Parts: sequence; structure tokens; C-alpha cells
Amino acid sequence: MNEKYLKFKPIGVIHSEHTDPAMTPIQPAYAHGCRGYAEIFPQYTAGLKDLDGFSHIYIIYHLHRAGPARMLVKPFLDDVERGVFSTRHPARPNPIGLSIVELIKVKGVMLHLDGVDMLDGTPIIDIKPYVKKFDRMDPTRDGWQDLIDETKARKKGTRGLIKENNE
Amino acid sequence: MNEKYLKFKPIGVIHSEHTDPAMTPIQPAYAHGCRGYAEIFPQYTAGLKDLDGFSHIYIIYHLHRAGPARMLVKPFLDDVERGVFSTRHPARPNPIGLSIVELIKVKGVMLHLDGVDMLDGTPIIDIKPYVKKFDRMDPTRDGWQDLIDETKARKKGTRGLIKENNE
Repeated sequence: MNEKYLKFKPIGVIHSEHTDPAMTPIQPAYAHGCRGYAEIFPQYTAGLKDLDGFSHIYIIYHLHRAGPARMLVKPFLDDVERGVFSTRHPARPNPIGLSIVELIKVKGVMLHLDGVDMLDGTPIIDIKPYVKKFDRMDPTRDGWQDLIDETKARKKGTRGLIKENNE
Repeated sequence: MNEKYLKFKPIGVIHSEHTDPAMTPIQPAYAHGCRGYAEIFPQYTAGLKDLDGFSHIYIIYHLHRAGPARMLVKPFLDDVERGVFSTRHPARPNPIGLSIVELIKVKGVMLHLDGVDMLDGTPIIDIKPYVKKFDRMDPTRDGWQDLIDETKARKKGTRGLIKENNE
């Protein structure tokens, strides 16, 4: 065992309609209407008690199809190279993804989700509740994201898959 | 190598005033005024470019002093046993913590932080920007957290370390 490594194990797997990274919405904010499931492995299902009380949850997952880490990346919504930690780009030193999805219902080992931006087969590492008083921040500065035109971003971010109301 | 495991490596370490878990604020929301630092290891510092534009960041970290995983836990703010995935309790199948902290400034390899609820020496796994349009949700239901008295929660959650304005 290499002492330098932290070892984690998948607790479940994502089932979604997304099989092509190039056609997958880049964030839950651009995936409204994309339904999917988080299947939790049976040995962990007792830990799902009370989760159905929350309207939104975090899914922490392995970006299992990410390429090698790069310190500078061109974000999907930008044409400028940015430091990878200032982006949600998958080519990170530790390929861990974070999505806040809507929890529609819990049925046995299956969490029914909306806003799914994860590829089918994505290994799940952790589930946490989204709690308004802990997680709903008022950021004063959104860095390079402040420079992005939201209409264009939405068009690109949804991959044209999702028809918006105003289209 | 056990194929079942996902292997990650620390990209840095937290420096904070918190050395006793029993005296550490339980969330950044209860740690206003708790300053600290995220030191990023030199091989990753190029990835910090542009991060200073963001007022808030996620820190994903190893809960390195968590006990063994339990499926039912008594949350710090509650007296009822809850499913571990409906809580932020450290005794999780994968002991990964998530904190949203205020980024005061970036100076070389050091991120200067406020709202630090992490123990001194905590290994850092990832840093991501908090982006309003992706991360600021309007949850309609906050589960068992809706039942918690906020005044008592704040008193307990801050561990009495932090004087509130109204005290």
C-alpha cells in the first residue's frame, strides 16, 4: 500500500441518459429536465434514512472518464486558459465531481433525480444534503464567470439538448 | 492493487486554530471569524491561477480523524438518529468533507480563508470555485434541519467560541 494515497470506494452508480461526454450538460443548472437515478449499493441503503426530506442533495463522484490532470485548462464556457482550481473542468489532480441535483423521491436503493449532468455509469463517492443555511451563499465575486454571457453559456452548457421556455 | 478502490492524493493541507474536534465549529456558517489557510503543494500552484477572482470556494477534504462508518448517526444538532447521507456527520463510508469558505486572498501557495471549520492538518483533496448560478439553490425542503431551532443550533454549532453580535 502506498501511504501517500487516500483510498475510497464507490457507494453506488449513476444511471443517466448521458453516454457521450460531448453531449452532456456541463452543470445541473443547464440540465433541468434531465432525469436520472443514483443507485446506492445495498450495504449502504440504511444510510439513506431521512434523505427524502431534502429537496436538493450533493452528489460527490468520480469523474471516471476525465483525461490526465492539467494545471491550466480552457473552461467549456470560456476561450481563455484558467487555473484548473478556478474551474469545474474534469482534468483535475483528483478527478472528483460535485453536482447539486434535485431529489424527486427515494424508492428503495434508487434516488430519483432531476438536473442530472453526470455520465451513465459514474461511480458515486458520497451523498450529502444541501442545507440552505450552510450552502446558500451570497458570493460577491464570481471571478471569470462574471465575464461570461449567460445566454450564450446556457446555449452551450445545455448542449442544445434542452429546449428553453424562451426558444 | 485492489481494483475496487479509487485512489486520490492530497493536494495540500489545512492550517487552522482547530486542534480539538470537540471544540471545532461544525460548519463554516458557524465559523465566521475563524481564519485559516489552505496550503497547496508546489506542484499544483499553477492551478490556482484566476482563483482569487472568487469570493467563496469549495474545499473538498479528507475527514482524517473520522471514526468508522455508521449508517445511522446522531447529528450534532439533533437528538434523533438519522441516515448518515442525510447528515454532514464525519462517520461516512467515504470520509470526505465539504466546506464552503470565504477566500480572502491568495498569496503564493497559501489561500487565506475565513469561516474555517476544518481541523489543523486536514488533507485537501480538491478546490473548486463557488459559482452563484451553479451553486446557490432555492431548496424547498431542508428535511430534519427544518425542525432545528436556529438559535440553539448556532450556540452549539459555534462551540461557544465565537461571540455573536447579539450576545
